[in-house]
Amino acid sequence: MSLTSPVRFALLGAGFIGSAHAVNLAAHPAVDFAVVFDVDLPRATALAAKYGAVATDDLEAVFGDPSIDAVLIASSTDTHAEHLGNAARAGKAIFCEKPIDLDLARATEAVRVVEESGVPAMIDFNRRFDRDYASLQAQVRAGDIGTVELVHLTSRGPSMPPLEYLAVSGGQMRDQAVHFFDLLTWITGEKPVEVFAAGSALAEPRLTEIGDVDTSVVTVRLESGALCQIDCTRRIGYGYDERIEVVGSLGMIEARRQRNGSVSKYVGSTIVEDGLHAGWFERLRDSYAASLGAFVSALVEERTPSPSLADGLRAQALADAATESLSVRRPIMVTAVEV
Amino acid sequence: MSLTSPVRFALLGAGFIGSAHAVNLAAHPAVDFAVVFDVDLPRATALAAKYGAVATDDLEAVFGDPSIDAVLIASSTDTHAEHLGNAARAGKAIFCEKPIDLDLARATEAVRVVEESGVPAMIDFNRRFDRDYASLQAQVRAGDIGTVELVHLTSRGPSMPPLEYLAVSGGQMRDQAVHFFDLLTWITGEKPVEVFAAGSALAEPRLTEIGDVDTSVVTVRLESGALCQIDCTRRIGYGYDERIEVVGSLGMIEARRQRNGSVSKYVGSTIVEDGLHAGWFERLRDSYAASLGAFVSALVEERTPSPSLADGLRAQALADAATESLSVRRPIMVTAVEV
Amino acid sequence: MSLTSPVRFALLGAGFIGSAHAVNLAAHPAVDFAVVFDVDLPRATALAAKYGAVATDDLEAVFGDPSIDAVLIASSTDTHAEHLGNAARAGKAIFCEKPIDLDLARATEAVRVVEESGVPAMIDFNRRFDRDYASLQAQVRAGDIGTVELVHLTSRGPSMPPLEYLAVSGGQMRDQAVHFFDLLTWITGEKPVEVFAAGSALAEPRLTEIGDVDTSVVTVRLESGALCQIDCTRRIGYGYDERIEVVGSLGMIEARRQRNGSVSKYVGSTIVEDGLHAGWFERLRDSYAASLGAFVSALVEERTPSPSLADGLRAQALADAATESLSVRRPIMVTAVEV
Amino acid sequence: MSLTSPVRFALLGAGFIGSAHAVNLAAHPAVDFAVVFDVDLPRATALAAKYGAVATDDLEAVFGDPSIDAVLIASSTDTHAEHLGNAARAGKAIFCEKPIDLDLARATEAVRVVEESGVPAMIDFNRRFDRDYASLQAQVRAGDIGTVELVHLTSRGPSMPPLEYLAVSGGQMRDQAVHFFDLLTWITGEKPVEVFAAGSALAEPRLTEIGDVDTSVVTVRLESGALCQIDCTRRIGYGYDERIEVVGSLGMIEARRQRNGSVSKYVGSTIVEDGLHAGWFERLRDSYAASLGAFVSALVEERTPSPSLADGLRAQALADAATESLSVRRPIMVTAVEV
Repeated sequence: MSLTSPVRFALLGAGFIGSAHAVNLAAHPAVDFAVVFDVDLPRATALAAKYGAVATDDLEAVFGDPSIDAVLIASSTDTHAEHLGNAARAGKAIFCEKPIDLDLARATEAVRVVEESGVPAMIDFNRRFDRDYASLQAQVRAGDIGTVELVHLTSRGPSMPPLEYLAVSGGQMRDQAVHFFDLLTWITGEKPVEVFAAGSALAEPRLTEIGDVDTSVVTVRLESGALCQIDCTRRIGYGYDERIEVVGSLGMIEARRQRNGSVSKYVGSTIVEDGLHAGWFERLRDSYAASLGAFVSALVEERTPSPSLADGLRAQALADAATESLSVRRPIMVTAVEV
Repeated sequence: MSLTSPVRFALLGAGFIGSAHAVNLAAHPAVDFAVVFDVDLPRATALAAKYGAVATDDLEAVFGDPSIDAVLIASSTDTHAEHLGNAARAGKAIFCEKPIDLDLARATEAVRVVEESGVPAMIDFNRRFDRDYASLQAQVRAGDIGTVELVHLTSRGPSMPPLEYLAVSGGQMRDQAVHFFDLLTWITGEKPVEVFAAGSALAEPRLTEIGDVDTSVVTVRLESGALCQIDCTRRIGYGYDERIEVVGSLGMIEARRQRNGSVSKYVGSTIVEDGLHAGWFERLRDSYAASLGAFVSALVEERTPSPSLADGLRAQALADAATESLSVRRPIMVTAVEV
Repeated sequence: MSLTSPVRFALLGAGFIGSAHAVNLAAHPAVDFAVVFDVDLPRATALAAKYGAVATDDLEAVFGDPSIDAVLIASSTDTHAEHLGNAARAGKAIFCEKPIDLDLARATEAVRVVEESGVPAMIDFNRRFDRDYASLQAQVRAGDIGTVELVHLTSRGPSMPPLEYLAVSGGQMRDQAVHFFDLLTWITGEKPVEVFAAGSALAEPRLTEIGDVDTSVVTVRLESGALCQIDCTRRIGYGYDERIEVVGSLGMIEARRQRNGSVSKYVGSTIVEDGLHAGWFERLRDSYAASLGAFVSALVEERTPSPSLADGLRAQALADAATESLSVRRPIMVTAVEV
Repeated sequence: MSLTSPVRFALLGAGFIGSAHAVNLAAHPAVDFAVVFDVDLPRATALAAKYGAVATDDLEAVFGDPSIDAVLIASSTDTHAEHLGNAARAGKAIFCEKPIDLDLARATEAVRVVEESGVPAMIDFNRRFDRDYASLQAQVRAGDIGTVELVHLTSRGPSMPPLEYLAVSGGQMRDQAVHFFDLLTWITGEKPVEVFAAGSALAEPRLTEIGDVDTSVVTVRLESGALCQIDCTRRIGYGYDERIEVVGSLGMIEARRQRNGSVSKYVGSTIVEDGLHAGWFERLRDSYAASLGAFVSALVEERTPSPSLADGLRAQALADAATESLSVRRPIMVTAVEV
């Protein structure tokens, strides 16, 4: 598949995350932001109008339009697999929000279809494009701290999402920790072999009724014997807190929690400093644009985009194993994903 | 003058800083970015094409077009005064890059003309809109650290600008320190009464031939007796370094030097951390958008934009006194600016 | 038991840790540092001479001397239980290095003997007296961050101890993690209910032969459902690294890793900062003096010293459970210690 | 003069600073702390008793005792010159608190007498032995940041000293800034050529009546053209704040303000961190011991102690010029000190 700049995009989904992608589609110099699809036509229309795109609620029109080069799938999770199949059959390049599908078997089948079609496809694990995380990963892979021995990942959200969202989210491992499962394998280049997760519903005890937790800690053993800890909380009350620490045989690299400003007030015996970002979107805004940019560059330069949909499956398989561990309260072996 | 959104802008000047403003004009939801003027028509055309604006090298056409609500003056310094006069006569709102004119008398006359015309006008001291500086100023003005007693401002550039630029820049006080003279009075709300400056040409000895310096330190006494120190260097070799510290009777507030990332590498007995931004534009990029945004909001909400052109004159008068001090090597009294 | 200042001490053990205690005994204004006992008489003599104390290798002379008020047990681990029994019978106050005994049953019996005798006794969990940790604990207990939900403890040593030391150390959980098991219950005021540990021998593969590890991660579930993660490594190559983080329902408190200096060098695009302390002793030196000081104050003011020997047993019971988990590779329930 | 360890010391002065030195004399393994002299005999007795030294108010007995190798002059400023003369004549090594004498001519004469006598002598500019400052100076002198171009020194005290103390202190330049004048020449290895100082009495307006200030800023030009700024305040209300920053042609080195602890509390949108040390003594305690240690080592190893009394005169000459600048409100040339 060969594409020339500008790449003509249809955006599927005009909700919150679709709107965030729309800003980046409009601003990218090598993108022609042509179409916004949503089953809610007024919502599609409102978003499309801001950027001079065409709105539609007719999916066949999108996939049947030969002028569309690529689709950005930002619709609700339960529609991803279907859109992937349609895009594969229509020969459109695909940029897909995670997850592919909450059911790993169904997700694997969808990825198989896309891979057989040969269309370029990428999963939006945007943290890989965060400036700090990319720098950290490059230094780890370059051997700056020797062989990896210990990884700590922190993922803490500012406030509880609505219960109705959580009920269809797949649980804390699949919805929140999955990004960090991907970071773990991306940073270390290693396969996970065993996972143990422990969790509690502390901020929202009603989560127990739907078999979910809001506070969890995860241990992952990698094939080399290196160990990883992840801590996940949904509601911390002090902003949005992500942090990565990798200890190797020669040293340690840390991507520190980012602050929302650089002002310090010294009064009496204490110092009051600006705290963290309000939420994940403020923290990660730039990485969304960078992720999309990497996809477009790969298309134009005829390289295979990365991370692949299969990377999405791998992270999801680890999330599934962690979810099982939460349930049975013992370590679970992680099985390799075969597409 | 009453304007309705969107405000229709002509941009005067398509060079580096004009291009930076163009990005923000195009992205602002309440701006209709209509025209790019430059004496170099191909340069205007190239910039206008990116944003769907019209390019022109015909100044009369710009000022004579009744559909244009506002001009953004980003042309070379020696044209600012003339553009201000034209805009005032044509009844256009004005957003003007600093300085108004390197000659204070000529600048004062230009401001008088604008003020008599009654058009809304603002000088682009964009640092006032930097998130950190705005937070610091608000806390100082709210009395969080009591009465101001001591201010330290740091202004350090990464590398020497070209000599040909420096030769027409007005010197380090007018070109570089002037932003910090404005910050000083804005933060403290006080009038400067005396200034002493000492300088050396250390990075570029040839500056001595044109009566300029690249390394200077300034002392300003404010009317309350509070004291301010400024240090300015043109070439530091470790990125771009700005910092503000205000000591009051009850404590201290600092806007720390900003870093370009949050990654730390611990190896042996040292820690290697991400350094500063590469240059002033990387550090201040967001404040340009915020400054323009404040201007547009003032227009639409029929408030007087701030900082005013007179604020520009006041900072420039202090820069003039500092320049004289550098030359005569003794403190100079600062005279009030009368428009 | 009522003691008047100065309290007359015999130090049992003149090795590295005994020598460290000797400095603090000599410097304490309410201590009369009278006797140094060691089975190696020349070693006792060399240490005693520095501080004007008397050296002996005659244990009965120490316990039989009615002028001795207190003993500081800093001899080898396998002698602690015997010294505890002798001191209890002789009515001496006891300040005891951890652990009480590597065998929990034997340790429990020794503590029972001391408790029945009624002599004041304290275990030297000196980290409780570290300025930062004490401040953190006080803020957590005061409810500053609400209810504790998540704790992270980091314990990382600079270099591998000798294999011969490790062979008799009781393993990484009992030797290294035990301090952090104590910190966990002290900070939270909660009982641990379940522990899971995973470990690898990465820095020193020969550890596998003696059933030990050098890199381990531990998950502890507390009775409230709050979760704790601990990471322990023996050799990190970037100094000595301890860190505590406690997340509560209202915020988070962190005792940051301490640096060995405050100098930053900015060159090019990076900043080189002073790293961590070289080893645990440099990091914790002051806490040894503070711990001894707390014991002496308790004696003079007739308060019960804290932490108690039973606190030592509780931390050890958790270490035992963690050691079992490492071995059987599944979570282990923690049983309460009964003295 | 050849001395063998231990060096037998008499301490002259048993006030606050004498007591601080007494701790270090007693703790130094190569010092025999023999005598405490004070005109207030009960004060001498109380201090001597703590360390097993002999107390006296008979000065001739001290200087006439051939067993005394060295004197530590920590008495009131107006007695330093006399003690220096007596010690020189008696052949005692001298460790002298600053200043030598508030009158530069009298101080110079005292130093001349000591130098002619050939006794080893050192002025206690203890900041040179602060870990951070020594590291910074060594890196600057090693050329790590190239040629020095700009220095910033911050000296801020927590609270106003009593007016009666200030009245005899010699003024803010001689009493407070003098340490930083010494640091400046020590760090850069350069001679100052011109100084400008501006000051205000903001915290204590009554200082104006005695010709002193509590808030001052100083500009020093060095012989190479490099520039230095110093800011001095007596009362900041947020602890004790010292900081050094040196900009060179290749980078910058900073000795950051030291904090009193490493605990951070994250609540809401802010972070509350441990502040600065309460006062200068808490910040500099270790440097007093290190300074004395350097003196003793020089004696035992038969090296010339450094900093010399002449270094004290040089800093004082700069302080005198700065004091004159404060008074006449213009820059003052600095004249070289000739002993």
